Amino acid sequence: MGSVMLGYVTDFFTYETTKSVVVKSWSVGIINRLVQLLIIIYFVGWVFIHEKAYQVTDTGIESSVMTKVKGFGYHNDRVMDVADYVYPPQGADIFCIMTKLIVTENQFQGKCAEFGERFSCTTDKDCHKHFGSVLTNGVITGVCIQTSNDTLNGRCEIEGWCPAENDQVEIQPMLDVNNFTIFIKNSIRFPLFNVTRGNFPTTMTATEIKRCTYHPEKHPFCPIFRVGDVLNYTGQSVDTLASQGGEIGINIEWKCNLDLNIDYCVPKYSFTRLDAPFAKNAISKGYNFRFAKYFKTENGTDFRTLHKAFAIRFDVMVTGNAGKFNTIPTLINLVAAFTSVGLGTVLCDIILLNFLKGAAQYKAKKFEEVSEAQIEASIAQSPGSQLSLKPCIKSSYDSGAMSLATSD
Amino acid sequence: MGSVMLGYVTDFFTYETTKSVVVKSWSVGIINRLVQLLIIIYFVGWVFIHEKAYQVTDTGIESSVMTKVKGFGYHNDRVMDVADYVYPPQGADIFCIMTKLIVTENQFQGKCAEFGERFSCTTDKDCHKHFGSVLTNGVITGVCIQTSNDTLNGRCEIEGWCPAENDQVEIQPMLDVNNFTIFIKNSIRFPLFNVTRGNFPTTMTATEIKRCTYHPEKHPFCPIFRVGDVLNYTGQSVDTLASQGGEIGINIEWKCNLDLNIDYCVPKYSFTRLDAPFAKNAISKGYNFRFAKYFKTENGTDFRTLHKAFAIRFDVMVTGNAGKFNTIPTLINLVAAFTSVGLGTVLCDIILLNFLKGAAQYKAKKFEEVSEAQIEASIAQSPGSQLSLKPCIKSSYDSGAMSLATSD
Amino acid sequence: MGSVMLGYVTDFFTYETTKSVVVKSWSVGIINRLVQLLIIIYFVGWVFIHEKAYQVTDTGIESSVMTKVKGFGYHNDRVMDVADYVYPPQGADIFCIMTKLIVTENQFQGKCAEFGERFSCTTDKDCHKHFGSVLTNGVITGVCIQTSNDTLNGRCEIEGWCPAENDQVEIQPMLDVNNFTIFIKNSIRFPLFNVTRGNFPTTMTATEIKRCTYHPEKHPFCPIFRVGDVLNYTGQSVDTLASQGGEIGINIEWKCNLDLNIDYCVPKYSFTRLDAPFAKNAISKGYNFRFAKYFKTENGTDFRTLHKAFAIRFDVMVTGNAGKFNTIPTLINLVAAFTSVGLGTVLCDIILLNFLKGAAQYKAKKFEEVSEAQIEASIAQSPGSQLSLKPCIKSSYDSGAMSLATSD
Repeated sequence: MGSVMLGYVTDFFTYETTKSVVVKSWSVGIINRLVQLLIIIYFVGWVFIHEKAYQVTDTGIESSVMTKVKGFGYHNDRVMDVADYVYPPQGADIFCIMTKLIVTENQFQGKCAEFGERFSCTTDKDCHKHFGSVLTNGVITGVCIQTSNDTLNGRCEIEGWCPAENDQVEIQPMLDVNNFTIFIKNSIRFPLFNVTRGNFPTTMTATEIKRCTYHPEKHPFCPIFRVGDVLNYTGQSVDTLASQGGEIGINIEWKCNLDLNIDYCVPKYSFTRLDAPFAKNAISKGYNFRFAKYFKTENGTDFRTLHKAFAIRFDVMVTGNAGKFNTIPTLINLVAAFTSVGLGTVLCDIILLNFLKGAAQYKAKKFEEVSEAQIEASIAQSPGSQLSLKPCIKSSYDSGAMSLATSD
Repeated sequence: MGSVMLGYVTDFFTYETTKSVVVKSWSVGIINRLVQLLIIIYFVGWVFIHEKAYQVTDTGIESSVMTKVKGFGYHNDRVMDVADYVYPPQGADIFCIMTKLIVTENQFQGKCAEFGERFSCTTDKDCHKHFGSVLTNGVITGVCIQTSNDTLNGRCEIEGWCPAENDQVEIQPMLDVNNFTIFIKNSIRFPLFNVTRGNFPTTMTATEIKRCTYHPEKHPFCPIFRVGDVLNYTGQSVDTLASQGGEIGINIEWKCNLDLNIDYCVPKYSFTRLDAPFAKNAISKGYNFRFAKYFKTENGTDFRTLHKAFAIRFDVMVTGNAGKFNTIPTLINLVAAFTSVGLGTVLCDIILLNFLKGAAQYKAKKFEEVSEAQIEASIAQSPGSQLSLKPCIKSSYDSGAMSLATSD
Repeated sequence: MGSVMLGYVTDFFTYETTKSVVVKSWSVGIINRLVQLLIIIYFVGWVFIHEKAYQVTDTGIESSVMTKVKGFGYHNDRVMDVADYVYPPQGADIFCIMTKLIVTENQFQGKCAEFGERFSCTTDKDCHKHFGSVLTNGVITGVCIQTSNDTLNGRCEIEGWCPAENDQVEIQPMLDVNNFTIFIKNSIRFPLFNVTRGNFPTTMTATEIKRCTYHPEKHPFCPIFRVGDVLNYTGQSVDTLASQGGEIGINIEWKCNLDLNIDYCVPKYSFTRLDAPFAKNAISKGYNFRFAKYFKTENGTDFRTLHKAFAIRFDVMVTGNAGKFNTIPTLINLVAAFTSVGLGTVLCDIILLNFLKGAAQYKAKKFEEVSEAQIEASIAQSPGSQLSLKPCIKSSYDSGAMSLATSD
């Protein structure tokens, strides 16, 4: 019993290694080493150094953005400050700077004539086609009313906030927006590595920050952006944007290699016009929205001032990822690299066994053939001894291409 | 010296290939090729074609959403327009359409009776249990005051904005919300591939867009959505949503195969009720929030109108990823595929060396055994020549299962 | 013809397996098995069990957050309720609780003296240095005007909303914020697996939710958070935050192993101070923003009340990922594991062929050499028969280290 056990243990602690044929041929030898070199160069140069396949990547960046706009502008002979032109006011990552306001004052609930040539009429019937339209300033009642300033033609009547808005007026946009500044405070975190970073260095003093203005080369880490510069970087003219509105993306990109010093983990800013994909469509050029301020008369009646605001909307978008050495991707890629180096033999086998002088001889050396017939014969002849098995080596027709599938 | 050098060089430019045993047996041969075929089919069909393992994927989609609601509704005998019922007004990705407003007008700072049966009292002591409660309309003072309309019972007194809100009133919600339309402008970017797309084709004209309404089959790329349709797609009734409020998710999904023409990179819309996971909880059905409009009397006293707004909140959520051919995943998966094909030999080895007739003979062919004793003997006998080493081939007990670990 | 065809078919259905040398040596055998054991332990323990490499991961979590604040506070002798101190009111994922308000009432458009010692002047020239400054309360006109309360020195004149804001006043912040509660409703979805979850169990009743308060151990799934507790968890003092403002992150983390019961897919809350990376910078401590309420006089002149609000901003950030068994990563990692086990032979080969007694003998067993000269000789001798090819086994100088590249 014990010796059988020992036999098993002895059999277990053996080492099995493949038997190899070493071909001493300059042609195949050089091809072999060349292929291996190419594979190694590819893996070391591209996979490991360029693509950093030895790192695990955290793409789930957590970000918090705080913004603050400063500056004064003239609009309709009034000075506008931050509380007047920034919406929403709380300094979110998406905020609008209103550059042109079409103001319709003292709107009360009631009935009045709709504004616009499209709504001119002579009889009530002319207005019925507008029933249910959402492109009006109120609910179409279906009545055609005479207006004082247009005695021949009437206008379709609407029910809602009156008087109706006239958004065709020419208003000078607030071009002072060019000199406004945006302060962006962005703190990010890579949860996988528990790394927290801010968008300006901790060594920057308050005075340094207050005085600087972002410049891609001179002040790449200054968190204060001049609106004119930002529009410039996106290639937009301030006149068009201020009068039609538009959407500007301020992208903060964090690409961090955490195997290096954490100080190299810095933001990179880029600026794009977000509505660029729609540049060819005639619709919805620009950006505008409507909001109202509500008032009460002395006797408690509600009235409002409607604002159609053309605004430049800024979207601060934070993207990024961080990489750090990790054994799992390293191992998997190393194994892939080693295995790939081994795959070089596939190519060499094809050359060796098919195209080289003496291919048949090489085949005979590489492949040892055993057929069912031989095995059966050997069993019949001497069932107890397999030492008498006479090797019958002959050329195999198994092509090198086939060995591609079985070589490892 | 030179000849030794040459010897090393000659030895380096050799080609080493494994010595193989070719078993000419129909049974193992067929099993071998079948296993290889299955593995190849799996890799080609599933890994490469279905799962596109040859692509690198960008999941860090950047997105900017602009929305615009249009439509008129009647609420409390007043016509409500966009400036009245949409909050926030700037056309963000998350916006609310208020469908029911409980308005408490002319609230002044002061002390008054709390509203509700829960706060009825006869003595001050009855009110002490409410101290510090956050479910009231103001700070409980601990005093029980008589109210004119309830002579027997008093009400607990609160300090804050008076009169207290009565949110139990029955108010007809604004069902016209059904006919409102939402225009969504969504531009996305895949930073890894620097691909920018908009959610409607650049060939669409302004008139086409203004006239169309989204329909999953007929107009899948129309960016204008009827609220009634959206609620329909989520299986919600407009009556419940309009009176209780609710959260609707409009999901824009971008799944782009950038190996194809960029025109196939289009959005797919889906609609869900976001508070679905809480459907079973009795709490917080629906969605509402409070806001106030502030006024001043002639002599400068502040007063406000409190609104409890029941709203349908729309969250436009953009998700997606883009894939494009890349050598790294392709190579890693190809290597995995080749290696896996090679792993087929493990199964065949087990069959060949254990279950086939003549297994012992096959073992003798496959394994060549060498023991420490032999080596030592051979060293003692002829230390200078290893050609005289007599191979001692005998059956190995190493099972095929063991060779699983060492076969490659 | 047919027999040639059959020959090809017979040749195709063969099975090729590597010829192996089994070394019966305790030293190499034990090293071999030990290395294999270590590799297996690494893959099973770390790669598969700890890192769950058999799962595919969805990191594109979709999330919708609804918040509701409750509580009353005293500020400037007035009771503030939710409609007064929360901005924006609609219950978004980012909201501010204003804790200190510097109110400048009755501002009209006009010209007046700027506030602050910095703007004191004796002649107009003293004011010219402030031209274009954005750190003022209006546009500097360049005129120095005498102010009634400061007869010796004048102040620079500004144009804009007058009177200018004095933000240096000492105001007691609303410390009652400590007792406010935040209710968070968060529903998430993993689009890859189409799994939807809410942040509190469906078994929780309305009364249970209304009564509970979040506690990391006692009530980890209660969705109601006391502001005081949250500030406590981040290690911040309420006094500093309430008077200077600040940004608090409420992180909801979903780490779901969908191979387990879905009930284990639960949120984990953590709380951080988001402006922590800027703690060392002197600038922009805290968080504040300005907004205005607009009024009209009887005769229609606009005036406003400017608020400088110091607020605690809460960012509810939802992160997470879900993993589920998938064949592709499993297979790739299994193949990597098997291949890695095979790579153990590389180490053993180096030991066997270089450092073991009888290394030359082992080399002779493992490597069979064939040179171009032999092949040519054999072709010349008997071109028809390769059976007569006499194997010429001799020691190869190919080191074990070299075989690292070609072993598989």
